[in-house]
Amino acid sequence: MPVDQHSADQRGVDRRDVLVGGLSALGGLAAGAAGGVGVARSGAAPAPAGSGPGAGSGSEADHATTVELAGSQRRPFHGEHQPGIMDAPQAHGVWVAMDLVPGADVTALQRLMRIWTQDVAQLMAGRAPYADFEPELTATTASLTVTVGIGPRVLGLRGVTATRPTWLQPLPAFPQIDRLDPRWSGGDVLLQICADSPITVSHAQWVLTKEARTIATVRWVQRGFRQGHAVTRPGETMRNLFGQVDGTVNPVPGRDDAVVWCGPSAPRWLQGGTTMVLRRIAMDLETWEEADPLTRDTSLGRRQRDGSPLTGRAETDAPDVAATDRLGLPVIDEFSHVRRSLPHEKGLTDRFLRRPYSYDDPPDPGRLTNAGLLFVAYQAELEQYLSVQRRLAEADLLNTWTTPIGSAVFAIPRGCREGEVLAQDLWA
Amino acid sequence: MPVDQHSADQRGVDRRDVLVGGLSALGGLAAGAAGGVGVARSGAAPAPAGSGPGAGSGSEADHATTVELAGSQRRPFHGEHQPGIMDAPQAHGVWVAMDLVPGADVTALQRLMRIWTQDVAQLMAGRAPYADFEPELTATTASLTVTVGIGPRVLGLRGVTATRPTWLQPLPAFPQIDRLDPRWSGGDVLLQICADSPITVSHAQWVLTKEARTIATVRWVQRGFRQGHAVTRPGETMRNLFGQVDGTVNPVPGRDDAVVWCGPSAPRWLQGGTTMVLRRIAMDLETWEEADPLTRDTSLGRRQRDGSPLTGRAETDAPDVAATDRLGLPVIDEFSHVRRSLPHEKGLTDRFLRRPYSYDDPPDPGRLTNAGLLFVAYQAELEQYLSVQRRLAEADLLNTWTTPIGSAVFAIPRGCREGEVLAQDLWA
Repeated sequence: MPVDQHSADQRGVDRRDVLVGGLSALGGLAAGAAGGVGVARSGAAPAPAGSGPGAGSGSEADHATTVELAGSQRRPFHGEHQPGIMDAPQAHGVWVAMDLVPGADVTALQRLMRIWTQDVAQLMAGRAPYADFEPELTATTASLTVTVGIGPRVLGLRGVTATRPTWLQPLPAFPQIDRLDPRWSGGDVLLQICADSPITVSHAQWVLTKEARTIATVRWVQRGFRQGHAVTRPGETMRNLFGQVDGTVNPVPGRDDAVVWCGPSAPRWLQGGTTMVLRRIAMDLETWEEADPLTRDTSLGRRQRDGSPLTGRAETDAPDVAATDRLGLPVIDEFSHVRRSLPHEKGLTDRFLRRPYSYDDPPDPGRLTNAGLLFVAYQAELEQYLSVQRRLAEADLLNTWTTPIGSAVFAIPRGCREGEVLAQDLWA
Repeated sequence: MPVDQHSADQRGVDRRDVLVGGLSALGGLAAGAAGGVGVARSGAAPAPAGSGPGAGSGSEADHATTVELAGSQRRPFHGEHQPGIMDAPQAHGVWVAMDLVPGADVTALQRLMRIWTQDVAQLMAGRAPYADFEPELTATTASLTVTVGIGPRVLGLRGVTATRPTWLQPLPAFPQIDRLDPRWSGGDVLLQICADSPITVSHAQWVLTKEARTIATVRWVQRGFRQGHAVTRPGETMRNLFGQVDGTVNPVPGRDDAVVWCGPSAPRWLQGGTTMVLRRIAMDLETWEEADPLTRDTSLGRRQRDGSPLTGRAETDAPDVAATDRLGLPVIDEFSHVRRSLPHEKGLTDRFLRRPYSYDDPPDPGRLTNAGLLFVAYQAELEQYLSVQRRLAEADLLNTWTTPIGSAVFAIPRGCREGEVLAQDLWA
């Protein structure tokens, strides 16, 4: 089936030119808009989507310009790191794990990575890939990012020359808390697809999985969301479905890059890459309901109202775990989530990047809800995550209401430069 | 558990005052913002969310103001009609059908409707209902609407004085196309919850279903989405996951009210109400993939590229079903979806309001996708829908790729004035 790629390209370019031209003529915003694409990669909030020309008149034309920007925002695919990790989390995301077909070897892997490298670059640029028959959906990029991960079994494929890092295997069991369901666990290769429009996410998912279908089958799909696009302030920490401010303490791009990106001591294919853990954590709204505000805040160590630590006034105040009340008891309970998860060390050893999304699926018969969190963690070394996870499994008051029901670990290869193929160091 | 409702109220009011005050001082937009809440009910697009003060500077402060508006936009609950029908469709929606517990009578129904009336009014206003223990999530209204529907069995409850309209029953079977699954069909009462933030939808769903739990159990839950908020132009027709522009020909508020709202000939509880059909339509992306562009456009009768009819140039051009090509063949195929669904009559008899949402759920084992459309139709009389549905079941080229797998019918009672209870005419 012929797809007129040239015309799709032209459409994308024309549209962008019109936009930037229009803005530049009207308000000098062109630099800001272009800057948005650039800074997004470094973790800053996306460029203002809301400061269109003609503010104050409130006419429909103003609004049209504004929302066009949101739908056509793009992030760069090529770079030192893969996108979708340290950049600002988009409103919607899906995680798709696929298993390579029996007998797949390095040739199959190479073919898959070549297809995905080409298609992801096209999709993120708003251009229809070769076998995209709904280019109209591709045109709405909405800050799309696609991140590709490598599961443990891939390193054992015939022809793969890199050796498997010892950590690249299913997480150790946490029998105190885990109730893992195989249908949310494991996988040979991973697609993480995030965008500010759920249709953009769905369409990219369809194009990338169908292009892989002769090489790999879908193992599981998990969809999640944060606040809708343009609903909260950029940079505002999200709330999960327990109502908690979730993700306050997170590495800052630039300053804390070493927390996330693998350095020179890692295998070549991971230098500039990272390690990813996806835990599917069921959150029992039906029992959380029974916890009064004091219990809730004590269990977390922060106030639900505004995310501030019990020893502070603002969300960003550092929790003071040494503080005691008039009776000499710790203000932040020693079994609270914050106390147990707070880094013990000054260095990187127990810090990591969280990029969580909520889920809310149809409940099982007889239940009211089926909600929780896709807890997505990135760290240069898996041990950074594990050292915290071990403490939380031993004791964390929040465990009363949360249950890990899925678990997967992936290696995220470094980013691609122009002309390179994702994960190419695995066989080079 | 005590919830400080007063402080939630205060917070909502203060926040709004600050916003409107800020805008009014800076750009005279206050009237436009307030107008957005009002006009939304009449089906117009929401107020511009993107024309904040200081356009052109691109500072973070501008953006903060803009997005605050999107999260705090509200629609009115009280009125002649229920909200969420003829007003602009929000980005996210969930449909929850509940079954009354065995032995429920009119007293149980009254209690449920009193709770929901009170809670929905609070939630839509951004105020925490009595048993809302995450008021922080309620504060983000994001144009929330909740619409309550009544299923067939309710009219048979002991103590319900209204008689059941003959149409209030499961749809007639369409054996040519239906493959209905009971887990997506039927239900005693319905909640339709829509908002521009998926977390707002989830939280309202949780509050309203848990408040109902002693009276009704969850039968099914269906979640859907359109383009993300502020991603496309307001008023722009959505695209479904086939890439088609979906919903071009729709009743216009004001001009076409009689298409949607039940008039004086309806039972009193439905005057100002409407009838609702929810069809879950699986869309087979895996076979749609094999249809070339000509087949796609011929089957629909419109161009996928821009939604224009094959006889026209723009999406809004009226299809000319009499037009023939040089060979004398109809340009719009007589079995195309557009030709089969186009109103045959000048009046209301075969027109209705479509408010569809896409879904994209985890695929069954061995499949790549599980996607489709929550086809939501509103009409004053069910026959308006049925006359078209019969034609489409008999012949519609799109049936090749689509399969109805769920079906439910609900009566939507008229709206509430202050002090009234939803559906109160059923027992008064």
